[in-house]
Amino acid sequence: MDKIKIIVAGPRGRMGLEAVKLVHNTENFELAAVLDRKNNGMNLSEIGGFEGIHAPVYSDLDECFSSVDAQVLIDLTTPEVGMVHAEKALEYGIRPVVGTTGFSKEDLERLDSLTAEKELGCIIAPNFAIGAILMMKFSQMAAKYFEDIEVIEMHHDQKLDAPSGTAVKTAQLISEVREDKIQGHPSEKETLPGARGADMNGMRIHSVRLPGLVAHQQVMFGMEGQLLTIRHDSFNRASFMSGVKLAVEEVMKIDVLVYGLENVIE
Amino acid sequence: MDKIKIIVAGPRGRMGLEAVKLVHNTENFELAAVLDRKNNGMNLSEIGGFEGIHAPVYSDLDECFSSVDAQVLIDLTTPEVGMVHAEKALEYGIRPVVGTTGFSKEDLERLDSLTAEKELGCIIAPNFAIGAILMMKFSQMAAKYFEDIEVIEMHHDQKLDAPSGTAVKTAQLISEVREDKIQGHPSEKETLPGARGADMNGMRIHSVRLPGLVAHQQVMFGMEGQLLTIRHDSFNRASFMSGVKLAVEEVMKIDVLVYGLENVIE
Amino acid sequence: MDKIKIIVAGPRGRMGLEAVKLVHNTENFELAAVLDRKNNGMNLSEIGGFEGIHAPVYSDLDECFSSVDAQVLIDLTTPEVGMVHAEKALEYGIRPVVGTTGFSKEDLERLDSLTAEKELGCIIAPNFAIGAILMMKFSQMAAKYFEDIEVIEMHHDQKLDAPSGTAVKTAQLISEVREDKIQGHPSEKETLPGARGADMNGMRIHSVRLPGLVAHQQVMFGMEGQLLTIRHDSFNRASFMSGVKLAVEEVMKIDVLVYGLENVIE
Amino acid sequence: MDKIKIIVAGPRGRMGLEAVKLVHNTENFELAAVLDRKNNGMNLSEIGGFEGIHAPVYSDLDECFSSVDAQVLIDLTTPEVGMVHAEKALEYGIRPVVGTTGFSKEDLERLDSLTAEKELGCIIAPNFAIGAILMMKFSQMAAKYFEDIEVIEMHHDQKLDAPSGTAVKTAQLISEVREDKIQGHPSEKETLPGARGADMNGMRIHSVRLPGLVAHQQVMFGMEGQLLTIRHDSFNRASFMSGVKLAVEEVMKIDVLVYGLENVIE
Repeated sequence: MDKIKIIVAGPRGRMGLEAVKLVHNTENFELAAVLDRKNNGMNLSEIGGFEGIHAPVYSDLDECFSSVDAQVLIDLTTPEVGMVHAEKALEYGIRPVVGTTGFSKEDLERLDSLTAEKELGCIIAPNFAIGAILMMKFSQMAAKYFEDIEVIEMHHDQKLDAPSGTAVKTAQLISEVREDKIQGHPSEKETLPGARGADMNGMRIHSVRLPGLVAHQQVMFGMEGQLLTIRHDSFNRASFMSGVKLAVEEVMKIDVLVYGLENVIE
Repeated sequence: MDKIKIIVAGPRGRMGLEAVKLVHNTENFELAAVLDRKNNGMNLSEIGGFEGIHAPVYSDLDECFSSVDAQVLIDLTTPEVGMVHAEKALEYGIRPVVGTTGFSKEDLERLDSLTAEKELGCIIAPNFAIGAILMMKFSQMAAKYFEDIEVIEMHHDQKLDAPSGTAVKTAQLISEVREDKIQGHPSEKETLPGARGADMNGMRIHSVRLPGLVAHQQVMFGMEGQLLTIRHDSFNRASFMSGVKLAVEEVMKIDVLVYGLENVIE
Repeated sequence: MDKIKIIVAGPRGRMGLEAVKLVHNTENFELAAVLDRKNNGMNLSEIGGFEGIHAPVYSDLDECFSSVDAQVLIDLTTPEVGMVHAEKALEYGIRPVVGTTGFSKEDLERLDSLTAEKELGCIIAPNFAIGAILMMKFSQMAAKYFEDIEVIEMHHDQKLDAPSGTAVKTAQLISEVREDKIQGHPSEKETLPGARGADMNGMRIHSVRLPGLVAHQQVMFGMEGQLLTIRHDSFNRASFMSGVKLAVEEVMKIDVLVYGLENVIE
Repeated sequence: MDKIKIIVAGPRGRMGLEAVKLVHNTENFELAAVLDRKNNGMNLSEIGGFEGIHAPVYSDLDECFSSVDAQVLIDLTTPEVGMVHAEKALEYGIRPVVGTTGFSKEDLERLDSLTAEKELGCIIAPNFAIGAILMMKFSQMAAKYFEDIEVIEMHHDQKLDAPSGTAVKTAQLISEVREDKIQGHPSEKETLPGARGADMNGMRIHSVRLPGLVAHQQVMFGMEGQLLTIRHDSFNRASFMSGVKLAVEEVMKIDVLVYGLENVIE
C-alpha cells in the first residue's frame, strides 16, 4: 500500500509536536512537509527537538500546497488558522483533518460546499480521544434503557470551569434520546447546598477537582438491582493521537465533510 | 392500550416469584394465570407470599393454555421444562419468553421452525440483565478501536467456576471482531504463577472472589494515554426483571425466534 | 473457652432478626434469651421464622435479667428502648452492646457513671459496619498528608437527605486534623450551579442517587502525581453483624463505656 | 525558621531533576549544591534545563561535603552510588535521604552504626509515594478485621515482572497480621488456568497490563455484606516528591537510621 503523504501545521505547538511524532512513527504515513510561521526553507530536522525527522518547512500556504505532493493536512492549531488552512487545502486537492471546537455554523457550511464541489473528504473534530468518543456514544445508547443517570467528571484542580465541556456534551447527547425525568426522591433535601450536583434535564453532574488528577469521567446508569458504568481516563495528550490517526485513514475514504469523530466510528 | 395478558410458570421459584411481582406491578401487564406443579385449581392469592395477587393456578399445560386468554408465557424455570412449555405455548398461539442457558442447537431449530409456522414471536435469553448485555455489546464495539483488553470479573466466594460465564462470553464476543494479539511485554515474567490471569486469544481474564461481593464485571480497554472501562454491577436478582419486561414488550412485536436479548437491543 | 451468653432485644425487628442469626451461628456465642414485647413465655423456636433456634422469650425486663444467666445484651431497637434496656442491664451485671445514633449527652453521661460504678463494659455505636468505620479512620489518617480531599457518597434514590450522615461524619473527622483550605482553582466557576458539590471547610462532598445502588462512599485524596482512594460498599444489612460480633467480644474485655466502634479498633 | 540547606546528587537524572525542582520550589528548602560526575566547577544555572536555578556543581565528594554548608543530602541515584554518598555524608555531619531498594542488610547495619555514632538522622526509603505507603499501611490495619483479601495491581504493558514489587510488599505486610487462609470456595475450579490469579498465603494477586496505564493498585477486603477498597493511582514520578519533602523534614528531627517512609508516618 502506498503511504499517505501528510502535511502537519504548527509543528512546534504541543499538539503539533505530537502529530509530527505520530506521522513519523506510523508505518503507512509519510511526513511530506510542515507549515510553520517561522523557519521557512529549513528542514525540520534542523530544529531543536526534531532531530532525525526530515521534512521541508514552509511558512507560505500557497507555496506549501502547490510544491508539496500531499494528500492530507493535519491541523491542530487554532480555529482561525484552522479554517484558513482547511479551505486552502481543499482548493489544492488536499484533505483536511482539523481538531477544533471553534468553527461556526457558517464555517462548517462553507467547508461542506467546498468538499462537495471538490469531492474530497474533510474531518473536523472537537475531540480526538477515541475512548472519550466511545464513552459518549455508549452513554447515549445506554440511556435508551436506563432513565436514571449521573455523571461524575474529575479533573486537576487548575481547571476553571465546572462541569467540563465533555460532561455537558455527554448530557446533551443523552438528552436527545432520554425523556426529561427529575431523578432522586421527590422529597429529597440538600442539608448542604450543592451536594446533589448540577441539574441538567433531571440528570445530575458532579465535578471533582483534585491535584494529581488529569481528565476522567464516569457515567453511571442505575436501575433496580443493577448499575452500568462507562468510564474514560485520559492520562496525557498522547490519548488524542490514536484519533488523529483514525481520522487520517478515514478522510482518505470519504468525499464529504464529517463533523465529529463519532461519525466515523461505527 | 390493551394490557398484555401473561402466564407465569413456576411462581414459587425464586425467579418465578420475581416475575409474578413484575407482572403484577407493571401497568400494562396483566397476570392471566400461573403454571404450578402443585396447587391446581387454587387462586394464587391463597398461597403464602402471594396475598392480594389474584390469578388462577393450573398444573396441566393443555388445560391452562386452552382455558386462559393469554398472549405471553414467561418461563424462568429449567431448560427441560422451558422447552416443553415453549413448544406447547406456541402451538396454542402464545408467545414464549424463556430464560435459560440450557437449550441445545436442536431445541432452537425446532423453536425456529415453530415460530415461522405460527408467525409468532419467541425470545429465548440466557441473561436478562440489560446492563450486562449492554456491557457485552459495548465491549465488542470498543474492541474495534482498542486491541488491548483485560477483563476483571468479581463474585462472591461461593462461586465454583472461574472465570464466570459472562466473562467468557464477553471475551468470545470481543474475539469475533479483534485479531488475536498477545498482550503485555513479550519478555513479561510471572514471578508468582497465575498473576497475569487466564489467557483467551491474548486477552487476560482475572477472577476475584470475596465474601460480600455479588456479581460484578469490568472490561478495560487500554491505549496510549487513555483507558476506557465498561463495568456492570449486579446487586440482586431484581436486575433481571427489567430485561424480562423488555422481552415481553418486544416479543409482541416480532414473529420470529430471537436468541439473546442483545438482539432486541439496538 | 466458655461461650458468651447473650440476650437479644427485639428479635422480630429487621436488625434483631440478623442479631439472633448471628448469635445462633457464632461458635462461641450462645443465645440465652430474647426480649420481645409479645410472646412472653414462649420459646423462640415456636415463632415463625425462628424454627430450630431455641431460647426463652421474655416481655418483662426485670424478669428476664433476673432469671437468665447472661453476660451481654444486644439491643438494636430504638434510642428510647435502648437506653432503658442498657441501664437496667448494667444494674443486673449484664454488659450492653447498643446500636443507636439517638443517645443524648446526658444519656451517655449516665451510662458512663453506671459502667464506672459497676465496673462493666458497655459499647454504644451509631454504626457497626467495620468497613465504614475503617474508611473513616483511614480518611482521618490520610488527611494529615493530603490536604485536598473530595467525598463521593452514593445511595439508592429513595434516600431523602444529601449528603449522607456518614459523609458528614467523615468530613468532620477529617476537619479535626486538616487545616481549612479552599480547594480548586481560586477563579473556578460553576457554569451549572451545584456542579462542584457541597462545601465543608473547603472539602467538597458529592451525593449520587440512583436506583440499584445500596450504600457506597469513596473518599479521594489528591496530590501532585497521585491519588489515594478509600471506598466502602455496603451491599446489605448483614454488613453490620461483623461489627456487632466484634463489639460483643470487646465488651467482655473492658470495664468502661465506649462510644463508637472506632474506639475498639486499633 | 531557617531554611534547610540541601545537596542533591545526580541532578541530570530523571529523579534528580525532580528533586532539584522540589528543593528550588519549596519555601523552607535551599539548594546548597549539586553532586554531578560532570560539570565540576560550573554553576547549575549554566546547564541546559536548569536556567535560573543557582547552585555550585561538584564532582568530588570530599570537596563538596567539606566546602558546602549543608544539612541534608538527597540521593535518588543507584544503590552503589547511594551507599558511598550516604556514608560519606554522615562522616561530614550531613543527614542522608536516600531512595533505593538495593541496600543489603550489611549496608543498613553499617549506616545504623554510623548514625548512632554521629547522632544524625538518616532515611533510606524504597518508595517515596506517600499514597502508596498509606495504602500499604491501611491494608495491614484492615487485614486485622477482614480475612478475605485480593490485590489488583495495574501497570503499563512494558512492565516485565508480575506481580509488581508493591503488590508483593503489600501482601507480605498483610501476612504479618493475617493468619494464612485459603480463600474462595474449597471446590473452586479454574476452567481457564490462571483466572484466580497468583496465590500468596491464600490471598490472590491479579496483575493487569495495558498500554495507557501508569501504576495503580487496589486492595479489596470482603466480608459478609460489605467491601472495603484501598486504591492508589500514581500518574507520574512527581508523586514521589511529596515523600522526599516529608523525608527531608523528618530527617532533621531524628538521630537514628529509619528504613522505609512508613516508619515516619503515624
